[in-house]
Amino acid sequence: MEKNRIEAFSDGVLAIIITIMVLNLQVPATPDISELKSRAPVFLTYVLSFLYIGIYWNNHHHLIKAARRATAGIMWANLHLLFWLSLLPFATGWMGYHHFQPVPAATYGLVLLLAGTAYFILQAVIIKEQGRDSKLAKAIGRDWKGKLSIICYGVGIAVAFWAPWISP
Amino acid sequence: MEKNRIEAFSDGVLAIIITIMVLNLQVPATPDISELKSRAPVFLTYVLSFLYIGIYWNNHHHLIKAARRATAGIMWANLHLLFWLSLLPFATGWMGYHHFQPVPAATYGLVLLLAGTAYFILQAVIIKEQGRDSKLAKAIGRDWKGKLSIICYGVGIAVAFWAPWISP
Amino acid sequence: MEKNRIEAFSDGVLAIIITIMVLNLQVPATPDISELKSRAPVFLTYVLSFLYIGIYWNNHHHLIKAARRATAGIMWANLHLLFWLSLLPFATGWMGYHHFQPVPAATYGLVLLLAGTAYFILQAVIIKEQGRDSKLAKAIGRDWKGKLSIICYGVGIAVAFWAPWISP
Amino acid sequence: MEKNRIEAFSDGVLAIIITIMVLNLQVPATPDISELKSRAPVFLTYVLSFLYIGIYWNNHHHLIKAARRATAGIMWANLHLLFWLSLLPFATGWMGYHHFQPVPAATYGLVLLLAGTAYFILQAVIIKEQGRDSKLAKAIGRDWKGKLSIICYGVGIAVAFWAPWISP
Repeated sequence: MEKNRIEAFSDGVLAIIITIMVLNLQVPATPDISELKSRAPVFLTYVLSFLYIGIYWNNHHHLIKAARRATAGIMWANLHLLFWLSLLPFATGWMGYHHFQPVPAATYGLVLLLAGTAYFILQAVIIKEQGRDSKLAKAIGRDWKGKLSIICYGVGIAVAFWAPWISP
Repeated sequence: MEKNRIEAFSDGVLAIIITIMVLNLQVPATPDISELKSRAPVFLTYVLSFLYIGIYWNNHHHLIKAARRATAGIMWANLHLLFWLSLLPFATGWMGYHHFQPVPAATYGLVLLLAGTAYFILQAVIIKEQGRDSKLAKAIGRDWKGKLSIICYGVGIAVAFWAPWISP
Repeated sequence: MEKNRIEAFSDGVLAIIITIMVLNLQVPATPDISELKSRAPVFLTYVLSFLYIGIYWNNHHHLIKAARRATAGIMWANLHLLFWLSLLPFATGWMGYHHFQPVPAATYGLVLLLAGTAYFILQAVIIKEQGRDSKLAKAIGRDWKGKLSIICYGVGIAVAFWAPWISP
Repeated sequence: MEKNRIEAFSDGVLAIIITIMVLNLQVPATPDISELKSRAPVFLTYVLSFLYIGIYWNNHHHLIKAARRATAGIMWANLHLLFWLSLLPFATGWMGYHHFQPVPAATYGLVLLLAGTAYFILQAVIIKEQGRDSKLAKAIGRDWKGKLSIICYGVGIAVAFWAPWISP
């Protein structure tokens, strides 16, 4: 398995996820400006999800570049990450249609949490293949931002159930 | 026809198939958690189909890498494989919506059986082009797993008609 | 404009066209086998359109390979071809849903005729850029199959209006 | 971040945007020729949007080719451009369904204006990275066509609100 085919496949899946999310906006039935206003929450969640996919795409590239060669483990860890990201259009649409209500918001947070976890697994698989002394292992040792974001997702999901007015 | 264009086209089609399957989950009309429960069968078939596409993508790569050059025969055998895989979103949605009832489950099994057969044809075309003494031919001679899976699909379809409670 | 980016973009568009056409099959509302029978015409038109896209993808590759370098003219002639092919999912769905009735069948034929014409324009643009003595120009001079197929499309459309029972 | 991965991802997103727009045409419920007539406005906006995406794809390629290497700034400026272009299928469908009425037409113009602005930002980011004396900076200094088109979009949006019969 060459690395560049993993990249090409991931790029394809991420490009389609981003573009399919926009279908949630649904073409309005009337030509009134009120239709745009009613789509504001869906639009906002689309912006949020677009940013997430953009961040994942960016980080993903650096991660795959760091891998020396593609193994079966890396391939499956990568598919695992793409699986959770592929649920983002569903979660985005649900949260957007129901104005950030607790269950859809918690589902959205859960999908992000699982995608974040999958990203960590992919990282761990690449480090294991590379050796603990590699540059990647050292760079990731300092990655408190990533660990923090996982904690934040978890807290966000919990909060979504208890306080819908705080949840993003 | 260069090999890498066959790879790029196949990657594109497989990436779209995976992402289109997720549209079967359909954004719920209410923000209730019961909506998630009612989507469980569709979600499970999505996981199953995602795994199948992942396995095909992985094996497909090794197969095309083994081909010395791309011929018209390889290209058409490859399109034939992509054709059956492109029916997977339809079969996945049908089986998921109807909780694994016999006819949709048998249709799902039939699509997998035909995709598996198309994969064997692609393999045979590449071996024919490569010669019987090639490494690929020897590796495949030992591929009892592949042959077994085809038999399993066939048995599964038959069983689906007679005993819906056994079928996956 | 490098040639390989034209190829990558065309591959992407063709891969999506093929996969989007399958959405016309629509997941059945009931788990009955009669649903499969009622989808037979849509399935048949899908097979037909899949074959057309496969043939175009194959020929397109040979054509672009023959071009020495990518010019603005080639790029626009290529986009023109992709435009007509992008209407194929619409025409396929319409013809399939209405069992090959005259107007949808003629529309389908018209889309194929316009795509065929766009292919000839692309060919002409590449030959003009390459010179009349090039290998491509000679190969195409013998392309009576291509010219014949254009005539066939035209006859097919005319026939579709007069004799719906003959039209494919 | 290598330049070619930005190109591949952008090509993927643009290819999907173009193909998703055609879904707005919706397969007609009857086989009558009047269905085609009623789809004329949607078809016309599709042609218009297809041309826009084609122009962006073409210009985008020249721009990225001019960049010496891919920086984080270029990547985000590029995602910003793709974001606005991803709203084109929504705006195209709305304008087409409502026969160029003022609000949908203004929305369409606004999306184009924001995409045009994002393109200028991407250009500025690349020039900043390249230096003011670069070939790109000089070529762009003469780009009065680009600046003019932004002004035209703005005027078009204003006009759309006041005189629906003039707006494109």
